[in-house]
Amino acid sequence: MGKAYTDLMRLRLNAVRTAPDVVVVPASDDQVERLLAYAERHQVAIVPFGGGTTVTEAVQSPRALNLCLDLGQMQGMSSLDATSHLATFGAGTLGPQLEQALQTRGFTLGHFPQSFECSTVGGWIASRSSGQNSIGYGRIEDMVYDMRVLTPAGPMDIGRAPASAAGPSLKEVFLGSEGTLGIITQATLRIRPRPESRDYRAFFFHSFEEGVQALRSLMQNGPRPALARLSDADETQAGLALSRRPSSALASAARRAGLALLPHLGYPRASAALLILGYEGEAGRVSADAGRARGEMERAGAFHLGTSPGRDWLRDRFHHPYLRDVLLDRGLMVDTFETATRWSEIVSLHRQLGEASRQALGERSYVMCHISHAYETGASLYFTILAPQDSPDPLAQWQRVKKAVTDHIVSLGATLTHHHGIGRSHASWLKAEVGPAGYQLLMAVKHHMDPQGILNPGVMWRPR
Amino acid sequence: MGKAYTDLMRLRLNAVRTAPDVVVVPASDDQVERLLAYAERHQVAIVPFGGGTTVTEAVQSPRALNLCLDLGQMQGMSSLDATSHLATFGAGTLGPQLEQALQTRGFTLGHFPQSFECSTVGGWIASRSSGQNSIGYGRIEDMVYDMRVLTPAGPMDIGRAPASAAGPSLKEVFLGSEGTLGIITQATLRIRPRPESRDYRAFFFHSFEEGVQALRSLMQNGPRPALARLSDADETQAGLALSRRPSSALASAARRAGLALLPHLGYPRASAALLILGYEGEAGRVSADAGRARGEMERAGAFHLGTSPGRDWLRDRFHHPYLRDVLLDRGLMVDTFETATRWSEIVSLHRQLGEASRQALGERSYVMCHISHAYETGASLYFTILAPQDSPDPLAQWQRVKKAVTDHIVSLGATLTHHHGIGRSHASWLKAEVGPAGYQLLMAVKHHMDPQGILNPGVMWRPR
Repeated sequence: MGKAYTDLMRLRLNAVRTAPDVVVVPASDDQVERLLAYAERHQVAIVPFGGGTTVTEAVQSPRALNLCLDLGQMQGMSSLDATSHLATFGAGTLGPQLEQALQTRGFTLGHFPQSFECSTVGGWIASRSSGQNSIGYGRIEDMVYDMRVLTPAGPMDIGRAPASAAGPSLKEVFLGSEGTLGIITQATLRIRPRPESRDYRAFFFHSFEEGVQALRSLMQNGPRPALARLSDADETQAGLALSRRPSSALASAARRAGLALLPHLGYPRASAALLILGYEGEAGRVSADAGRARGEMERAGAFHLGTSPGRDWLRDRFHHPYLRDVLLDRGLMVDTFETATRWSEIVSLHRQLGEASRQALGERSYVMCHISHAYETGASLYFTILAPQDSPDPLAQWQRVKKAVTDHIVSLGATLTHHHGIGRSHASWLKAEVGPAGYQLLMAVKHHMDPQGILNPGVMWRPR
Repeated sequence: MGKAYTDLMRLRLNAVRTAPDVVVVPASDDQVERLLAYAERHQVAIVPFGGGTTVTEAVQSPRALNLCLDLGQMQGMSSLDATSHLATFGAGTLGPQLEQALQTRGFTLGHFPQSFECSTVGGWIASRSSGQNSIGYGRIEDMVYDMRVLTPAGPMDIGRAPASAAGPSLKEVFLGSEGTLGIITQATLRIRPRPESRDYRAFFFHSFEEGVQALRSLMQNGPRPALARLSDADETQAGLALSRRPSSALASAARRAGLALLPHLGYPRASAALLILGYEGEAGRVSADAGRARGEMERAGAFHLGTSPGRDWLRDRFHHPYLRDVLLDRGLMVDTFETATRWSEIVSLHRQLGEASRQALGERSYVMCHISHAYETGASLYFTILAPQDSPDPLAQWQRVKKAVTDHIVSLGATLTHHHGIGRSHASWLKAEVGPAGYQLLMAVKHHMDPQGILNPGVMWRPR
């Protein structure tokens, strides 16, 4: 199973209705190819499994006879081309293994999704993953130089150059294919020099809207950061509440800044929005850029909170998901959803999705949001929602909320998902996202690559 | 017809064997859709025509009854979202029209292929075009935010956000589709502030190899330029010969540098390699980056030639293609080909392709090359080849050379084309580029989108 709210709840409710009939852990491309041939011959569904961190129900076993293909043995760095800044990894390589292999040689991939500790190279590619530092290092699609995909229609080696005009991009067909078109077994990724220096700092804005404007200007006019994370007022308040430990840098920076005084300075606690801004790279450039950015932010209305909250955030960046289990224990429904749109729509989308969520969740809910990834033309919105689990059927309660929110996202013209993927959770909306002709084209690709429908059935496309 | 060597020669030899049966210039999406329906009903082939600058024979009329769909009336900027740095253009908008519309509002697209004066937005997208400033501004695929494509399988509006994880990227299926999957009628493109300042300057390296190393380091460690163009020794010599006019800045910079003295300084004329490096953007950043880059280049062995050759290059950047007609008049075969690979292969690929070209062309040939586009992981190689037209059948002579060179590119593992596209000229090698399973997948997409095969038949895929 994965790590969706529904996955966790099904486990807690003893409502898991399917399981793998067999788990196979192949050690080579040859073994994967033989598994594919076997599965086609005997009509066995294959569910490729990387790190199991999906939050879109993308690795559940279908009802049919099925085989979980665990890529955990196909891991490690098989080659490093230091001249070309390229390294090849097995699809099952976990984030920390990959960074350790690279960092001991002076490199980094710079791909840090929140699932980093438990997710894999193959999973990142199959789900179009985006790391927290995507502004500085790019999304996974910017990093893949070449990849091997084993499919019922034959093996494919995709990618020959940093860029090509040789027709449609096959790489971009398998990026985001979520195990439904083939099994990614290895990939060559663009790597970067390990950053010599890091500067992460925090700012308070008077409001989310003011922060949006400042962040947009930074993305469009520079100096562009490696990471930016702008919380709305509700998330900022929750963050302050969670950082009441005396050791918290955010709390002590806020104290030093005289949090009680902030309202008098015009930063009312109820509307203040926290921005974390990170610069990475060559030391001179980092210090110049971070300094210039601080000036720009202050001119845009920000209150500078210093570097310690940034350092804290870096240290704790992968810890927050673990909080979910604690909240579930206390009878709370907690989930996240995310989307992206252009800058001119961000503030209105944030307001409308916030309202839609609160309406779907009821009065005792808490809805908070941050911009998790920013671009020149727009940004993503990442919502965390909390409400009492007050239904006799928590899965139905979730389904109702999920539908209300997702209907809203799609009807407002934003994208169905910025980095979580489709899986089962979003499959009903794929047609709305890509339109009827786009959906038919994706189906045609699926039918060509997997005519028997053995690859991860139920994911991406609704079962036929 | 287009602007391939074979197009020009067929015109000169009076060997044009096909022509459009009708040229239609629709003014709206509705008219394009009616044309598509008409063409399907009556089995009429459609050749979409943008600016006609293809050098891969991508707009020739097929032998079948055919209709040239000229997008020249669907032009202009239909909307500008200055907040999101996005602008929407009709597919028939020409480069200069687009830049004028943007620059009067303080923006630029920054897309300057050598065909800029005569090529169109739709053509750029359909052929995966890459501008001379692609390091700074990205390739066309980095600029497309959304697009409308009208197809026999229905209309498609593709793109909802700066980035998305909603499955495979349909945008990347139509990028590079060369009119074979649908008619692109409009696109929204990412725009940038018009650069406040420009710094273009030139350097001599002792050799191409030395220049490659210096340019690679710049791409990997910064400061990354907006443009880089590194000529090999033969192209550098040709450039100096062509710039003998007294007004030429390269000539006078070389004179000032004491060109005759350069060999004594260790820059022998026979091996010296010219690098043009351009920085664009905010004035302070440009001057800092250009200064740092000069230092890096000099430490790497470069002789600094100053800014005037760079300014000259900027002024003349779109003029060189016109020289081809003059050379053809004088009985020369002249063509270009291009590819890309990783940095660790660039020097060896340059040598091997140079040798293969000289061998195919014979003793009286001149083969020169430059790196036209650079990336962190590799670069493109752009060859210009000249030889006497000494065959009674110049088209067969060309075919022989083209085959020898392209066989070499593909067998060496480099990409078939970095930015010219497939068209008819490269169609025979597409299967070698993407492999048998990749080729079958592309064919499946084609058959789904265009079951009657009316869209630009003969291009990309060999006729069935």
